[in-house]
Amino acid sequence: LRALATAPAARGLLDDAAVAPFPLGDDLVATHDVLVAGVHYTPGCPPEDVGWKLAAVNASDLAATGARPLGMLLGLALGPAEDAAWIDRFARGLGQAIDAFGLALWGGDTVRTPGPAVLGLTALGAVRPGTALGRSGARSGDHLWVSGTIGDAGAGLALALDPVRGGTIPPGVARDLLARYRRPAPRLALGRAMVGIAHAAMDVSDGLLLDARRMGEASGVAVEIEADAVPRSRALARWLEARPEEDPLAPLAAGDDYELLLAAAPDDEARLRTAAARSRTPITLVGQFLEGEGLRLTAGGRPLPLPARLGFEH
Amino acid sequence: LRALATAPAARGLLDDAAVAPFPLGDDLVATHDVLVAGVHYTPGCPPEDVGWKLAAVNASDLAATGARPLGMLLGLALGPAEDAAWIDRFARGLGQAIDAFGLALWGGDTVRTPGPAVLGLTALGAVRPGTALGRSGARSGDHLWVSGTIGDAGAGLALALDPVRGGTIPPGVARDLLARYRRPAPRLALGRAMVGIAHAAMDVSDGLLLDARRMGEASGVAVEIEADAVPRSRALARWLEARPEEDPLAPLAAGDDYELLLAAAPDDEARLRTAAARSRTPITLVGQFLEGEGLRLTAGGRPLPLPARLGFEH
Repeated sequence: LRALATAPAARGLLDDAAVAPFPLGDDLVATHDVLVAGVHYTPGCPPEDVGWKLAAVNASDLAATGARPLGMLLGLALGPAEDAAWIDRFARGLGQAIDAFGLALWGGDTVRTPGPAVLGLTALGAVRPGTALGRSGARSGDHLWVSGTIGDAGAGLALALDPVRGGTIPPGVARDLLARYRRPAPRLALGRAMVGIAHAAMDVSDGLLLDARRMGEASGVAVEIEADAVPRSRALARWLEARPEEDPLAPLAAGDDYELLLAAAPDDEARLRTAAARSRTPITLVGQFLEGEGLRLTAGGRPLPLPARLGFEH
Repeated sequence: LRALATAPAARGLLDDAAVAPFPLGDDLVATHDVLVAGVHYTPGCPPEDVGWKLAAVNASDLAATGARPLGMLLGLALGPAEDAAWIDRFARGLGQAIDAFGLALWGGDTVRTPGPAVLGLTALGAVRPGTALGRSGARSGDHLWVSGTIGDAGAGLALALDPVRGGTIPPGVARDLLARYRRPAPRLALGRAMVGIAHAAMDVSDGLLLDARRMGEASGVAVEIEADAVPRSRALARWLEARPEEDPLAPLAAGDDYELLLAAAPDDEARLRTAAARSRTPITLVGQFLEGEGLRLTAGGRPLPLPARLGFEH
């Protein structure tokens, strides 16, 4: 881990605190997420993927504000299971994430616990003053957009928990779905491109339906989602074909996709599409915000009953 | 905990990330420390004191840089032992620390673990650009100063582990020593006052001797400490009187005092004293930095053998 802390802000890890110049006049964006072994990742998860995911889930929170990543602090409580080899592999995955997201390792604290590992990470970023996106800015009449594809990570989690279920689909498809679960790609470029265009943004971590409802609640408006419009990957389509017994709405309630939900005025559609294309991120129109409250689901424009479970409540 | 997050930066905890204006042109200071139940605090420790201490140890790292506190993020993994009543009491102590240190609660993450509680906190601060203090700036010829008194927290820890030992001293004295261990007071005002005067600063968390040696190592100089000059409280004197069998040098190797060690040029003594007095913090000259390396101890100017243990190595 020490070898990753090459940024000047880390001060060679000689000191207890990191010191970094801050972009003149910008607002500071700060987020902290914790992963617990056996709770937030499966015991068999490769340590490289744990390191990547810890950075990715925090970078995704920065992405949802439109912030540029600056640095991170680690707070690791390692258990008896996390030996030197585990830490080396964890550091490798973390290092890949540091390079991919432009988040430098500034410092932190590593301690031992007799319990399961508890892995915390603080991600720090900067955004032009007063422009940070949040989930409470959606307005009645706004369109609801989502990046990438939805549901892949949920299928990946099912595969991680029970690899045998992947036996009916091609190994390449199983690999893609598992990678979406274990190596989420935070939408940093899209988030930055949305500053000044989107009215609201948040990442999809607990399920599209649940998170969209939360955006509506925070904004004081109702949200309507057209199920048939929700973008699905080819890998997910293959997965669903092999499981005709599965609820076709289940992907809309699956978590861990780390795509971005965006609210924007219909008049801004062209600007939104251009900015998203420049950030090389596909986005899809999946619904709209309306006066009132709550979540409505449609299929081909007709009302659809909501599934019993909208996502991970915690 | 929610009730503590009243700062605008917390955005009502609706979002996953906090957003705060940052002082124009300042450097960002960031630190993260983790406490594990049963490792970093005793199982019988009142939850209010755990909340206070978690904030205090991090604020002390800010103090050592000379930073002004801005905000904090919590990363709490709570175990089966931390029920709603525990969390209420923890929040009360944390709230007292927030008020005392000027550190606003901006957000974070709270999760459950089947193991012992792991409590992480990120403290964020700001300092005029290029002026942050660190432990590597001491120069040969500099004086070594320490704030407050040394060794009280070590006696407090002994009392926390074995209250019976306090039976031979007045209850008021035992209370004072225990409070120094459980309610450390980070030297934020002194740290800020030392910017532009001290060459180096660090907090005494692992023991005066060990931490002073670390400052010397980081600065590439030797350090000499005059044992008789090290400031002791009246409470500690009473404690030591009641324990004639104890090594009188033990307080110099005890941790958790959270005083500041400072290196400053002898010519700056008047400025240093004036600035410390303005911050209402007593400071004492306890040694000096010399060409070479390592730690030397003297008593009345004569060499003294070093104790086998200089502090908490971890």
